[in-house]
Amino acid sequence: MSTYREAGVDVEAGEDAVDRIRSAVASTVRPGVLGSVGGFGGLFDLAAIGHYQDPLLVSSTDGVGTKALLAAELGVYHTLGFDLVAMCVDDLVCTGAEPLFFLDYVLVGHLDPELVEQVVAGIAAACREVGAGLLGGEMAEHPGQLPAGELDLAGFCVGVVERDRLLPQRVEPGCVLVGLPSPNLRSNGFSLVRKVFADRVLTDEAWTGAGRSLGEVLLEPSVLFAPKARRLLEALDVRALAHITGGGMVPKLGRVVPDGCAAVVDRRSWEPPQVFTEVQRAGAISDDEMARVFNLGIGMVAVVPAEEASAACRLVERATVIGEVVAARADAAQRVRWA
Amino acid sequence: MSTYREAGVDVEAGEDAVDRIRSAVASTVRPGVLGSVGGFGGLFDLAAIGHYQDPLLVSSTDGVGTKALLAAELGVYHTLGFDLVAMCVDDLVCTGAEPLFFLDYVLVGHLDPELVEQVVAGIAAACREVGAGLLGGEMAEHPGQLPAGELDLAGFCVGVVERDRLLPQRVEPGCVLVGLPSPNLRSNGFSLVRKVFADRVLTDEAWTGAGRSLGEVLLEPSVLFAPKARRLLEALDVRALAHITGGGMVPKLGRVVPDGCAAVVDRRSWEPPQVFTEVQRAGAISDDEMARVFNLGIGMVAVVPAEEASAACRLVERATVIGEVVAARADAAQRVRWA
Repeated sequence: MSTYREAGVDVEAGEDAVDRIRSAVASTVRPGVLGSVGGFGGLFDLAAIGHYQDPLLVSSTDGVGTKALLAAELGVYHTLGFDLVAMCVDDLVCTGAEPLFFLDYVLVGHLDPELVEQVVAGIAAACREVGAGLLGGEMAEHPGQLPAGELDLAGFCVGVVERDRLLPQRVEPGCVLVGLPSPNLRSNGFSLVRKVFADRVLTDEAWTGAGRSLGEVLLEPSVLFAPKARRLLEALDVRALAHITGGGMVPKLGRVVPDGCAAVVDRRSWEPPQVFTEVQRAGAISDDEMARVFNLGIGMVAVVPAEEASAACRLVERATVIGEVVAARADAAQRVRWA
Repeated sequence: MSTYREAGVDVEAGEDAVDRIRSAVASTVRPGVLGSVGGFGGLFDLAAIGHYQDPLLVSSTDGVGTKALLAAELGVYHTLGFDLVAMCVDDLVCTGAEPLFFLDYVLVGHLDPELVEQVVAGIAAACREVGAGLLGGEMAEHPGQLPAGELDLAGFCVGVVERDRLLPQRVEPGCVLVGLPSPNLRSNGFSLVRKVFADRVLTDEAWTGAGRSLGEVLLEPSVLFAPKARRLLEALDVRALAHITGGGMVPKLGRVVPDGCAAVVDRRSWEPPQVFTEVQRAGAISDDEMARVFNLGIGMVAVVPAEEASAACRLVERATVIGEVVAARADAAQRVRWA
């Protein structure tokens, strides 16, 4: 006699997990969230977005990369929720959008309700911070696909932006680049990080000059830029926002630089946090490769008119001018240059 | 010297894959789709939804379960796209919603552009069939998490429904249950299916009475119910729709049955397709377990007033009345009973 349970699918564990995440999900309710319809779909009331004249919906999806494997090695799952929301929502805000709601997909080999509870608690905390309702999710238990304790995460978010405030717009000579600091790796480059530290015992090895382990430092949750970006968008004439993730500054900032312009970034205008120099040293990684894989301490770039640069730096703690937009040949391949 | 490529992340393969999926993505453009904003988010123009007076957004996420492992064993990936869209969008339409857009998340251990192209071609074909724009997606390459050729898929869709047409509504005695047929397993119960057939060579073993292999039969893509459901919604006074997926008829149909009612389903009113009887025999699975894991040939149930039952059966090929809604004690735990 074959049963679903013998095949590795534990329906009761699924129900237990659903019970455990209920209050976290409820904690993210914001205007517009109407909850779920018999489990077939999450509802969001467009009337609640209010003041938009000509709204566009914006949607984005992302994951946390192999940082999830590091989390599994360390048995710590709640920080991944911040990473997941940050990866999705911090992309979304680069269009000028206000986040509305978020959905998550959690893949596990064996459904451990405690693990799911940790993951969703982190997702919900991050959703509250960015103002997104956690409208739905899926727990996928795939026996045999991943070992117990391992997981993957995917996130989806939807936001709204006024059509005439869609970014980027009017990026031109005279604009400056304001860098928003990230003290850590965020959720990019972890395949390389894990390779570099493959022989270390992450839980034991002390991090230089702090009472923490190497693993704890690497696993630090992403800063959520969305609230900072929203502050800038509400107060200033922001022309563009670029979320610096996989691939680094050149491709990601390059996305918002139009024909006839170049962004010139002064790499000496900020000091990469220690974690980057440690990773570089441990892996004997070239400067160029570091810049292609990591954010190097600047996780988001806001493009604003020069006269608003100091206001931007006051609105976001430790934000700093890292460069400027200059005129370039119309067909210049290099949209982003290092000064 | 460590590099990202040596750590297993192939940026060029990613770019190749993006080139390969471009035309498939473009083929799904529908009114409202404005494309992507520099890669930070996909845009959908709310003005294009047109005739809604008081619209609610509906959102849903799902995966394809371990059917993806079966696809990987067979090296056939394009059918999974239908499964992914069906799992998400056929949930969404149960709220009465019209699908607007879809995003996908593809997890692989090693990024094979040909594999991604097959997957996205299937997703795009299914998106066209249900009228959803493929607004964005993520290819996640996680070296070491999955073996080459293996994958997982998550999907996410957003639709819109007029507030006063939100389903379920007015499910009451006098309504009948119209079953929409699924000739195959859809994308549920595959952990059990794979266990049952673990010792068979799926590519070689001939399927009873057809020129196909066992693997081909098991991998058949899901029927997309959304277009059929939309036909019913536009023509009839549909009171509820239930997508019969994991857990089977009892919990899924139970979601739309209110206090004071029960849905009585006559299991003899349809013949389960051969694939279910073969799986049951091969695994010596009990009738009850079969009904808890599989759709048994009815993939969606529409609840309509009795006088519209024959019209519903004319609108959807091979649809058939499978039961009715009756009065029940207000606190009855059993919302769905077998006749």
